[in-house]
Amino acid sequence: MLEGTWYLEKHTESLLYLHKIRSHIYHGKTAYQKVDIVEIEAFGKTLFLDGKIQSAQIDEFVYHEALVHPAMLTHPDPKNVIILGGGEGATLREVLRHPVERATMVDIDEQLVKLCEAYLPEWHAGAFYDERANLVFADARSYLENSDETYDVIISDLTEPLEGGPSVLLFTREFYTTAYERLSEDGVLVVQSASADPYYNDFVRDVYVTLKSVFPKVKVFRAPVFSFQMDWAFTLATKGRDPEEVPVEEIGRRIAPFTDKLRFYTPELHSALFKLPKFLKEVLPKGRVITDENPPVWLS
Amino acid sequence: MLEGTWYLEKHTESLLYLHKIRSHIYHGKTAYQKVDIVEIEAFGKTLFLDGKIQSAQIDEFVYHEALVHPAMLTHPDPKNVIILGGGEGATLREVLRHPVERATMVDIDEQLVKLCEAYLPEWHAGAFYDERANLVFADARSYLENSDETYDVIISDLTEPLEGGPSVLLFTREFYTTAYERLSEDGVLVVQSASADPYYNDFVRDVYVTLKSVFPKVKVFRAPVFSFQMDWAFTLATKGRDPEEVPVEEIGRRIAPFTDKLRFYTPELHSALFKLPKFLKEVLPKGRVITDENPPVWLS
Amino acid sequence: MLEGTWYLEKHTESLLYLHKIRSHIYHGKTAYQKVDIVEIEAFGKTLFLDGKIQSAQIDEFVYHEALVHPAMLTHPDPKNVIILGGGEGATLREVLRHPVERATMVDIDEQLVKLCEAYLPEWHAGAFYDERANLVFADARSYLENSDETYDVIISDLTEPLEGGPSVLLFTREFYTTAYERLSEDGVLVVQSASADPYYNDFVRDVYVTLKSVFPKVKVFRAPVFSFQMDWAFTLATKGRDPEEVPVEEIGRRIAPFTDKLRFYTPELHSALFKLPKFLKEVLPKGRVITDENPPVWLS
Amino acid sequence: MLEGTWYLEKHTESLLYLHKIRSHIYHGKTAYQKVDIVEIEAFGKTLFLDGKIQSAQIDEFVYHEALVHPAMLTHPDPKNVIILGGGEGATLREVLRHPVERATMVDIDEQLVKLCEAYLPEWHAGAFYDERANLVFADARSYLENSDETYDVIISDLTEPLEGGPSVLLFTREFYTTAYERLSEDGVLVVQSASADPYYNDFVRDVYVTLKSVFPKVKVFRAPVFSFQMDWAFTLATKGRDPEEVPVEEIGRRIAPFTDKLRFYTPELHSALFKLPKFLKEVLPKGRVITDENPPVWLS
Repeated sequence: MLEGTWYLEKHTESLLYLHKIRSHIYHGKTAYQKVDIVEIEAFGKTLFLDGKIQSAQIDEFVYHEALVHPAMLTHPDPKNVIILGGGEGATLREVLRHPVERATMVDIDEQLVKLCEAYLPEWHAGAFYDERANLVFADARSYLENSDETYDVIISDLTEPLEGGPSVLLFTREFYTTAYERLSEDGVLVVQSASADPYYNDFVRDVYVTLKSVFPKVKVFRAPVFSFQMDWAFTLATKGRDPEEVPVEEIGRRIAPFTDKLRFYTPELHSALFKLPKFLKEVLPKGRVITDENPPVWLS
Repeated sequence: MLEGTWYLEKHTESLLYLHKIRSHIYHGKTAYQKVDIVEIEAFGKTLFLDGKIQSAQIDEFVYHEALVHPAMLTHPDPKNVIILGGGEGATLREVLRHPVERATMVDIDEQLVKLCEAYLPEWHAGAFYDERANLVFADARSYLENSDETYDVIISDLTEPLEGGPSVLLFTREFYTTAYERLSEDGVLVVQSASADPYYNDFVRDVYVTLKSVFPKVKVFRAPVFSFQMDWAFTLATKGRDPEEVPVEEIGRRIAPFTDKLRFYTPELHSALFKLPKFLKEVLPKGRVITDENPPVWLS
Repeated sequence: MLEGTWYLEKHTESLLYLHKIRSHIYHGKTAYQKVDIVEIEAFGKTLFLDGKIQSAQIDEFVYHEALVHPAMLTHPDPKNVIILGGGEGATLREVLRHPVERATMVDIDEQLVKLCEAYLPEWHAGAFYDERANLVFADARSYLENSDETYDVIISDLTEPLEGGPSVLLFTREFYTTAYERLSEDGVLVVQSASADPYYNDFVRDVYVTLKSVFPKVKVFRAPVFSFQMDWAFTLATKGRDPEEVPVEEIGRRIAPFTDKLRFYTPELHSALFKLPKFLKEVLPKGRVITDENPPVWLS
Repeated sequence: MLEGTWYLEKHTESLLYLHKIRSHIYHGKTAYQKVDIVEIEAFGKTLFLDGKIQSAQIDEFVYHEALVHPAMLTHPDPKNVIILGGGEGATLREVLRHPVERATMVDIDEQLVKLCEAYLPEWHAGAFYDERANLVFADARSYLENSDETYDVIISDLTEPLEGGPSVLLFTREFYTTAYERLSEDGVLVVQSASADPYYNDFVRDVYVTLKSVFPKVKVFRAPVFSFQMDWAFTLATKGRDPEEVPVEEIGRRIAPFTDKLRFYTPELHSALFKLPKFLKEVLPKGRVITDENPPVWLS
């Protein structure tokens, strides 16, 4: 039946989505954002922040496996990991599949994390209660600037830098310089970088070029996040290691203990993710360096 | 401005898209389908058949390069090619980039081809007027059954088999057996196979299993067709050749003469396309063999 | 903000409404119908049954005052009143403003009445707890057929006769004959009769002609129910009294005790409501007599 | 079929309409406004200006008969009439049904009038070619200020005063004072005054109070314009005559020559139109006087 409640998502000014709602779970606001948790017919339980889809039950695994495992596997033996953002807890969940000693998650929005803990247990799957997990509610930039720890992997799982929002200064050269300094010698930084499609790829270009101005080795990869209705880009930066050179056998061996839990990532897929469509490869170098003085403004 | 004309696309019963229209080009019907050609803000000039998006100016190249080049490159030297369907002429355009001797395109809907010729010149780009092109307006199955030619590559560029529509018997084991017989020893068949996403992949499973019942070597690959809002699946079948074993160097050499025309396909991307997400790899063998007696029914 | 939850109402196949939702109150089903109670920005708290708007906080008073007071005032001194349907309790509320001795409300859907009692207190305003109120959960037709009471006013506050729904046999000549028999000499029957607009007025025509086949005096009147997005028709039938001949002074005197509670009805408006646009006046006689054998079918 | 082109009308920020389009007639812009002429399933041929419905084939007669005839009948014998605005020509059409000597129509948007002349012949019905018609393309305020003619009826058929639009200074006390001066002793001014509904009636209140500050006798009336989805308000002002006191017999006699052309207005309906719902009657005096220094701002 066509009648009833729908979630209207303004993908852009000229493309609207209407998602049929099966049930309403939570509608409200935190100090930082509008939160809607609904079960939609097409994607199951779904989290919308400020009206934009963030995560859907049917395929959050694609996004979270793609964000975490290529980065974790590029490091030979990550022990100390930090997640910037990561509200739902699914990034933490994937990190903890590896034999890390400690995984810190720094999210500014405590209310949102609590809502996700209560209403999205399929996402965190108990990761918040793992003894290796360290939850911090703080601004990720301040936290990293004031930390004296060294991390093996830094995972930037932040919302796009909406004007006036909390992420604006988390994609700049200055911040990435801090990240570089906090990384161990074999350290890996991975940044979720928004759309990889042919028309809205300005953001990934800029992240790529900005990271290139700080790190010796930077590569973009992508994964098909169906509920985002597009290929999603991720940027991986290291002090020299090449993520495409991790041997397939090593990947197979290291993910073997939890391979039955994976639904997207495979050893063969690892380096294929880094093979980009020609249009994307060609535009990446055309980005600009993002700085604190000139941060990106992502219009909502 | 929100007000004005929009194209409503019913992606499924529970997911509607509203595309803002920039200009109206053609609204009408052929003997086989409802045709809307509009310029939409998000994707440029766009063709909708029976209310479903078929091709958009901004990224038709992804679909058409992915459909044509992996198949053409898997054959060592294709000379005689046949396209089943292919209305807009863009598949023909990509085929003719190769040094073929003859490319036959068999489409049942002459009116649609004429509309595309007139209103979508960016798609055919003159391919219809190439002396190697052979346009036939006929049912593709009858044509192939009554042909005594041998083809090096057969490209199935057909709409999904909507109930009562002209494509219902073009995805069956019987038809693929005819295709096998019309192929040369190194021959390649490629079939556009609809969605590669985690929830609507029934069709590609069935096409895969059906082709496996006829051909010794069958592989699925995928490409991100942004205007379809998802990864798209293609199935490639041969009498033994493995598409992933075509050397990168050979691809580079063979596409060199027209590489500046390509916007999606690259030598490095070729075999990466065949690396599938785990969920898709696992479900493919679960399809069923499609037969003339039990054809697929795709509900509109 | 455009994004968020909206209620999609299919006014017709070719006119859809999207109502922005402020808060969700109840979504569920009774044995008879799908019930959505939401607060919408435009109309406040709103009840939708089977996806169609039934009553909105902002102007339910127009519908309920128009349904009740012209009928009550046409009778010189109504003491015993029966309401057929009337789920929300607002019709009962308006009836009880008059010095009646007893007001019976017969609704088939007990669950709906309970939901309205709990979630729509602004509608019933305590009317359910008035000692003169008599709530019966039963089929209105059976109840009236098996009753031996005489009523001064019968108020038909029923949903349109959707195919397969409970109202199908409540708009027929046979049923109206029973109603005639249950009415006192000065008795008045009023029937909510759906749209009074120029294109969808088939229903009021048929109700008018059917009542004319049973009652000596039948008149249609209308009121602008904004949340229904149109003028709404009501049909009033008597054994001879003319509703337009009630003196303005009598109306003023009889409503004086509760005139501060009224927001739509006034003495001067009473007979103005019966003055119809020419197009409506002309089509009314073109209806058909509805019978048990040939009931109306209102397609949802 | 749900799929296809729809016209999205933003009735308010929280209520959207989607009108199914049957055919596209014209999409473009004049120097003053965006113009869409489409045939929609629900209402037939329809004119949208700046995304708002202006006139629909199915019921333009309600609006135009209500705007013209009560005013014309309130004057004992109108000979010289001026229409301010009136783009489509239907107001002119209704005026010319009366035995006037001259009817001047002053519209600022010549392109729009030409588009209506060409594409909406059902509206003007040849009125533009009547020898009594005098078309002027000019700003209505300047025209009236610089005119030394005396008019029997002035009809304000203007769009609402959108910010920055041409109508902003056509609803002020200063302008109505000019109108008063141009009117003959029995002269009548009528002003289309937007919505008469319970929630968006600010405009009619202000027009009412502003006219009261200039004219001795001012009355609001209303008509159900279905394609506007609500009751529509009109304000009528005179130097003393009371529109409700025109005898029914006089109306009948004067409209007799063209009564077969009317579809809304009748002698009996005339004074009923002036009987207002209580809520509207009560809010009218609460408006404010609109002045040139403080004109209304109608947000689009």
